[in-house]
Amino acid sequence: MSSSRRKAPSSRTEVRRARERALYDREVINEILDAGILCHVGFVFDGRPVVIPTLYWRSGDRIFLHGSTASRMMRAIEGTDACIGVTHLDGLVLAHSAFHHSANYRSVCVFGRPQPVPANEQESHLRDFMEGLFPGRWETLRPVRARELNATRLLTIPIDEASAKVRHGPLDEPAKDTTWPTWAGVLPLVTSFGVPLPDEHSERAGLSAIDGAARIARGAPR
Amino acid sequence: MSSSRRKAPSSRTEVRRARERALYDREVINEILDAGILCHVGFVFDGRPVVIPTLYWRSGDRIFLHGSTASRMMRAIEGTDACIGVTHLDGLVLAHSAFHHSANYRSVCVFGRPQPVPANEQESHLRDFMEGLFPGRWETLRPVRARELNATRLLTIPIDEASAKVRHGPLDEPAKDTTWPTWAGVLPLVTSFGVPLPDEHSERAGLSAIDGAARIARGAPR
Repeated sequence: MSSSRRKAPSSRTEVRRARERALYDREVINEILDAGILCHVGFVFDGRPVVIPTLYWRSGDRIFLHGSTASRMMRAIEGTDACIGVTHLDGLVLAHSAFHHSANYRSVCVFGRPQPVPANEQESHLRDFMEGLFPGRWETLRPVRARELNATRLLTIPIDEASAKVRHGPLDEPAKDTTWPTWAGVLPLVTSFGVPLPDEHSERAGLSAIDGAARIARGAPR
Repeated sequence: MSSSRRKAPSSRTEVRRARERALYDREVINEILDAGILCHVGFVFDGRPVVIPTLYWRSGDRIFLHGSTASRMMRAIEGTDACIGVTHLDGLVLAHSAFHHSANYRSVCVFGRPQPVPANEQESHLRDFMEGLFPGRWETLRPVRARELNATRLLTIPIDEASAKVRHGPLDEPAKDTTWPTWAGVLPLVTSFGVPLPDEHSERAGLSAIDGAARIARGAPR
């Protein structure tokens, strides 16, 4: 391991287990975040841990979440400790023994206290979210209404206390196991878009399906 | 919504937001759990929420997690409150306005206090995990050693306090938006196995790749 590797930004973000898989470089963290759209938000509610899935996006040094103003999760995490987990499962690693089976993955954990985005900045951030997935789409949409913005809450978390953990590549097992007569290797897992299902009007009008969102087609393990 | 639908097993598991998407039927919960392999475990560590990704499996009325005896997460969650989140993102729902965009997903949240699995029961549960993914593989593997079992910790959580949340189907937006001239519809997301990458020995010996694990090919939205 290179000694020039970035150190953990805090004790809380320091990965303890399988340290050789831990990374704290912002570039690596951003790449993993940008390859995803779904995160799991951990927070404490009534003294107990809760995990809720939601969509997210990154813009610069921050992660953004959005939800209804009526969302319990959005209310619960504002200004209080939260942990955002993003994981891409890239493959299953099959060894010759049960013990050495593993998984290839890229994951990021961001700790922080989500802060509200001022009302007058919400629209431009929502636009970033859409444009990041489907470049050019925002301008084609029926414009946003004030009532809709008022019903939407945005929260942002700085990517300060963050760590990444990555496992990739072939299996790793004792040399004497490698000739055991069973199949071993890596089964890659790939997430991709299926055939688009247009709504009635789009089909009748012969509109072209979106084929953007390349960033969430995350087949290639690092 | 049918009045015969199962009620939430506790206040904590009751889904508040978008209640029409909430389900508490064990069959639905099991189906969603069985379609996945990756979960996000939420727990409180030093008073703060932490979310860690890990593999899981279901057997009967329980979820199982496994890890190294040295794992901080496995130590931290034993006997204390944890929340297990499993989510399948099945598609992106593109509406004619930004506001009515949505996502199709199936998610489960299980609350509980993970309990250790007795040492003499570990091997049969690990076998269940392997056989659930790759039927018949366990018998072909180099047998498990006592030393390996001793280095492995299993935890189990009963599926008592659990809820599912599901959104599927086409977009849902005001009728007057539907003729706006932009593409709208559903972009399905599909996770599948890529081409297996055999290790050197499997390739040379011409062994057949595993093509099991059908249960985690989770393309079909409910």
